[in-house]
Amino acid sequence: MVRVGIINVTGYAGAELARLLYVHPEARLTGVSGRSAAGKPLSEVFPHLTCHDLTIGEEVGDVDFVFSALPHAASAEAVAPLVRAGVPVVDISADFRLRDPQEYAQWYGVEHPAPDLLPRAVYGLTELNREAVRTSRLIANPGCYPESALLALAPAVQEDVIGPEVIIDSKSGVSGAGRALGLTYHFAEADESVSAYGLAGHRHLPEMVQELAAMWPRAETPEPRLPAGTASRPKVTFTPHLIPMTRGILSTCYAPLAQGTVRSGEEARELYREFYRGEPFVRVVDSPPATKQVSGSNMCLVYPTVDPRTERLVAVSVIDNLVKGAAGQAIQNMNAMLGLPETTGLEAPAVYP
Amino acid sequence: MVRVGIINVTGYAGAELARLLYVHPEARLTGVSGRSAAGKPLSEVFPHLTCHDLTIGEEVGDVDFVFSALPHAASAEAVAPLVRAGVPVVDISADFRLRDPQEYAQWYGVEHPAPDLLPRAVYGLTELNREAVRTSRLIANPGCYPESALLALAPAVQEDVIGPEVIIDSKSGVSGAGRALGLTYHFAEADESVSAYGLAGHRHLPEMVQELAAMWPRAETPEPRLPAGTASRPKVTFTPHLIPMTRGILSTCYAPLAQGTVRSGEEARELYREFYRGEPFVRVVDSPPATKQVSGSNMCLVYPTVDPRTERLVAVSVIDNLVKGAAGQAIQNMNAMLGLPETTGLEAPAVYP
Amino acid sequence: MVRVGIINVTGYAGAELARLLYVHPEARLTGVSGRSAAGKPLSEVFPHLTCHDLTIGEEVGDVDFVFSALPHAASAEAVAPLVRAGVPVVDISADFRLRDPQEYAQWYGVEHPAPDLLPRAVYGLTELNREAVRTSRLIANPGCYPESALLALAPAVQEDVIGPEVIIDSKSGVSGAGRALGLTYHFAEADESVSAYGLAGHRHLPEMVQELAAMWPRAETPEPRLPAGTASRPKVTFTPHLIPMTRGILSTCYAPLAQGTVRSGEEARELYREFYRGEPFVRVVDSPPATKQVSGSNMCLVYPTVDPRTERLVAVSVIDNLVKGAAGQAIQNMNAMLGLPETTGLEAPAVYP
Amino acid sequence: MVRVGIINVTGYAGAELARLLYVHPEARLTGVSGRSAAGKPLSEVFPHLTCHDLTIGEEVGDVDFVFSALPHAASAEAVAPLVRAGVPVVDISADFRLRDPQEYAQWYGVEHPAPDLLPRAVYGLTELNREAVRTSRLIANPGCYPESALLALAPAVQEDVIGPEVIIDSKSGVSGAGRALGLTYHFAEADESVSAYGLAGHRHLPEMVQELAAMWPRAETPEPRLPAGTASRPKVTFTPHLIPMTRGILSTCYAPLAQGTVRSGEEARELYREFYRGEPFVRVVDSPPATKQVSGSNMCLVYPTVDPRTERLVAVSVIDNLVKGAAGQAIQNMNAMLGLPETTGLEAPAVYP
Repeated sequence: MVRVGIINVTGYAGAELARLLYVHPEARLTGVSGRSAAGKPLSEVFPHLTCHDLTIGEEVGDVDFVFSALPHAASAEAVAPLVRAGVPVVDISADFRLRDPQEYAQWYGVEHPAPDLLPRAVYGLTELNREAVRTSRLIANPGCYPESALLALAPAVQEDVIGPEVIIDSKSGVSGAGRALGLTYHFAEADESVSAYGLAGHRHLPEMVQELAAMWPRAETPEPRLPAGTASRPKVTFTPHLIPMTRGILSTCYAPLAQGTVRSGEEARELYREFYRGEPFVRVVDSPPATKQVSGSNMCLVYPTVDPRTERLVAVSVIDNLVKGAAGQAIQNMNAMLGLPETTGLEAPAVYP
Repeated sequence: MVRVGIINVTGYAGAELARLLYVHPEARLTGVSGRSAAGKPLSEVFPHLTCHDLTIGEEVGDVDFVFSALPHAASAEAVAPLVRAGVPVVDISADFRLRDPQEYAQWYGVEHPAPDLLPRAVYGLTELNREAVRTSRLIANPGCYPESALLALAPAVQEDVIGPEVIIDSKSGVSGAGRALGLTYHFAEADESVSAYGLAGHRHLPEMVQELAAMWPRAETPEPRLPAGTASRPKVTFTPHLIPMTRGILSTCYAPLAQGTVRSGEEARELYREFYRGEPFVRVVDSPPATKQVSGSNMCLVYPTVDPRTERLVAVSVIDNLVKGAAGQAIQNMNAMLGLPETTGLEAPAVYP
Repeated sequence: MVRVGIINVTGYAGAELARLLYVHPEARLTGVSGRSAAGKPLSEVFPHLTCHDLTIGEEVGDVDFVFSALPHAASAEAVAPLVRAGVPVVDISADFRLRDPQEYAQWYGVEHPAPDLLPRAVYGLTELNREAVRTSRLIANPGCYPESALLALAPAVQEDVIGPEVIIDSKSGVSGAGRALGLTYHFAEADESVSAYGLAGHRHLPEMVQELAAMWPRAETPEPRLPAGTASRPKVTFTPHLIPMTRGILSTCYAPLAQGTVRSGEEARELYREFYRGEPFVRVVDSPPATKQVSGSNMCLVYPTVDPRTERLVAVSVIDNLVKGAAGQAIQNMNAMLGLPETTGLEAPAVYP
Repeated sequence: MVRVGIINVTGYAGAELARLLYVHPEARLTGVSGRSAAGKPLSEVFPHLTCHDLTIGEEVGDVDFVFSALPHAASAEAVAPLVRAGVPVVDISADFRLRDPQEYAQWYGVEHPAPDLLPRAVYGLTELNREAVRTSRLIANPGCYPESALLALAPAVQEDVIGPEVIIDSKSGVSGAGRALGLTYHFAEADESVSAYGLAGHRHLPEMVQELAAMWPRAETPEPRLPAGTASRPKVTFTPHLIPMTRGILSTCYAPLAQGTVRSGEEARELYREFYRGEPFVRVVDSPPATKQVSGSNMCLVYPTVDPRTERLVAVSVIDNLVKGAAGQAIQNMNAMLGLPETTGLEAPAVYP
């Protein structure tokens, strides 16, 4: 039985880790920390977690595996000594996602607290990085939006059927904004309303671009309008939207089809099905999915299709932002790191309706 | 491994049984039926249940245990031969809840299809009827409203601290109305709106009255205004309300405190805590609970308090109507019948937020 | 054209006043204040109010009529000099609702800032207090819960058909909690959840009791269990609940029917219909109403019925908490004070669905 | 006073017309029809419309102006004789939107019932077609999605700053699906869920393409990848999404910026502001708008910006789908046709929150 700790259990990602770990047969949550709530029983902060009988501490104590659900910068600071001491860590914050510390500084507005650890970090989208995840001891768990967009686009990118003009239009439930209060997330304001945000540049954009660029086939002809050297870099516009629901992300991704490749929705789905064959947590579906179909579960449903009028790929994916977009993906990574079947403790179907 | 069948899997209670059984370590769902959808894969009707790899049949086939999620009357007809053949059955319909077939005919508008089986049926509120449940082979699973109200009131009734003038004001999510379409449950009509219904008499009322009367202490002084013979029958008004959310029931129960018994909220909670000591699925809480705290789980949270200005008990309970109010309670009953720990397969914490 | 000012326009009640006044043909909003936002255009705080072209000030300036939407205590302080100067005021805060300054101090935790003005104040439930409202210059606008409960109970009380054992179970949308942030009103927490609150005593309770007591017929036989002197005081338990919607209050009110009075729901509705004959904003309906049917409007729908099994009256009312429960009622009071038809500017039907 | 009739008042668009007309100072609703509900009081079908005191008839009777809210095909059949008789008509159905009856037959699956009237019809997006609307007697009221997308894109198209590769990603509340029942719109299914639909081609697509093509500047250089003859036809992908709210549409529109035109979000907004100068119902805003800011009102808020990383225009618009997307736009058209100020009867601000 692996003893597990959660650093900063007091947010939604931390609480979701605790929820999922309770039914994990090979791991036991033995330590939870959270500065603001240190000393309180976990059940006081989250009544649904009474089952755990744990008190929130300053530290997680002596554990075999650590999840960090701290905000960026604080997270790298907290896990750096653990990583250096050899403790395996899955970091749910953004700190180890961007490989370039300059880019990190630019998007997050702080110097990276542990740039020396960046080369050790593996981007933990297990389906796309499985071998690296298995042998790593520091996982950068993907952002919720990149998780949904990358799973929707990876087969098309890696099979070289789309051009680099990518648009990602995502719709997220409000829990993605966390537990910190704000007028935008006040019930009477967020309810019965939709809005776009992050139009000047959302922090999940460079993460998407980095991962898409890394998987893009090299032979890509340079775009005529792009300067030399940025040839294969996809041109991604990403617009997140706030939706009046608690959980779920749906991403609608658009890209031009390369001529003479995929000709129909059926062909697209065939290609995707082949790509994800055997994946327990990604399912290619035959009709547009709804976020409710994955609520509470670690599943991602993907529906790729073709707009024949414009020769574009349109790929739609749905995940639960707190599970496949955060805590579930983190546990899937832990399972891979520990040599367990990736589905261990993550088998529960979605809670529907 | 017990082979389990679900008769009429195509409604929300049936689907919820299938969801919960998937993670049950001692039971395997091997047959599901549903007339309108016979021949279809279960995953076509419910994409979140792809895990099961089952086809909906006309019958559930050769199984060791049966849940029926048929509507009333149809359910008794379907399970009667099974019961007679010795197959253990938990009936989620209302057919075996009322002991008096005349009362059944009056409230449900049809003759009872199998009145001879009524004496064999046990009302499956496990916490209050544990011994009978364990030895029965035909369980009448409680209605969702009675489940919430009886758990809120049982300690006060059995400890003889309240009078019989009971008011039960319940608030239910829309999934309680099932999957059949209706203008009242049309999103644009039900969203952002609350309404009362069933004011002329809801079918869960006689069920509540029957069970409350059965547990009411005998020594109760006859009410002066009641005719002789009905002395200890509680006078219950029950008003259900439709709430713009999918899952959850909150019941607010009011009753006059007998003089000289409970004097404060703390005393009430102490009494309740003692009553429910050791129960895994009922927790007495120190502040008013929210339905979200039990969503997706088999927990019932109860908060009893006292209105000192009026010497009334006010007891609030919350459950997930599809779990503790239906499928979870049914599996808890199955566990008890099979001699398993009642929590088997029902350990997952609530999905929060 | 009456020049109107709103003190503290930055909350939901203030904004709702501004919305409704924009279409009022006899009043013009000329001044709005709000300390935290002073100097900002009204349209910056509330984009839907761009129509007004007003800047939020420290004061409302020279106006003929004032609404105060300040919190309690601050409101009495702000309006006292205006009242003394003869400016007609409708106070939406609680400051002038309780006639007894001791009771005010007990429930609100502060000394009343202007007890000398209490005798001048009229409780502004126009339908029940019309003559007094017309001649007053200081109106205490009712609380949203009392508004809904008093309209549901007044006919039964005044026609002497119920006993004093009253239970009021109210369900409110989240906008009733105002615009100030709190975890309880955080979208991800309030969405898909119902909870009771204020069980130890909500501030709207004494207001309900005061008004019900005032209208209760004198000949009422003293309750045996009550001490002398409190004879006709109704024994009210009031439980508010938070519902996952933005607007609306539904109150379900229970009281024992006096023997030999009302015998059926039809009789109850007949009595209510007679009582409210000619009222433009109260409609007695023949089936249980939904809050959505009054959303955005100043209507109150009332559905009284009888539970024949228990000889109780059950009266259900619905209002929009921000209109009939606050700003609309305030404008109705202004209309009455100014000698205008009460419906002036309040004719718009509900926004449905 | 113009006597107005609504054909098929029983859907949401019809009811919304009745709601808005009640406060219109120059029009009086005198006749409403609706086959299924003929003979019933309007207030029975829609309790919020009790104010009208009208009975639903088979016909609208003798009126000066007609709105048709019938489904397509049925609408053209019903209004054709009226149009021929000279009665001015605003048709809310799709029947007179597509100029080409062949295209109509292809998308709607029926022969056009009155192709001879198509040349008389004017596409009633008043802001873009004002002069034609004023002198027409048959208005094709725009679809809700085209309304939102065209207002978001028109300035960029007409000022020739974008290329024809357009993507429109729209998010709609569930009322857009109408009052007819369907599992997709069942509360428990639609609540807490987002999904895309119409990916194979939504009927509002040809309408968008037709109107965008008509306004596209002629000198547009042919796209290299397009066959000759389709040069200036915009290549539009349109994806509608169902959002768990009742009212509102937000459209996020993407298009490549022509080189050397607009360089920043500020420049884009300046261009849009100039384009919509003086329009009472379109406002260019400085931060991304929320649908709640226009709920219940005839306003459209537009926020254009530039993604500098990809040289794309991103334009976001919000409307209330039942007002600016249907009934409000229809009344605006009526006002223009009658020579009234377009704002007549449409002044009410949004109902917020």
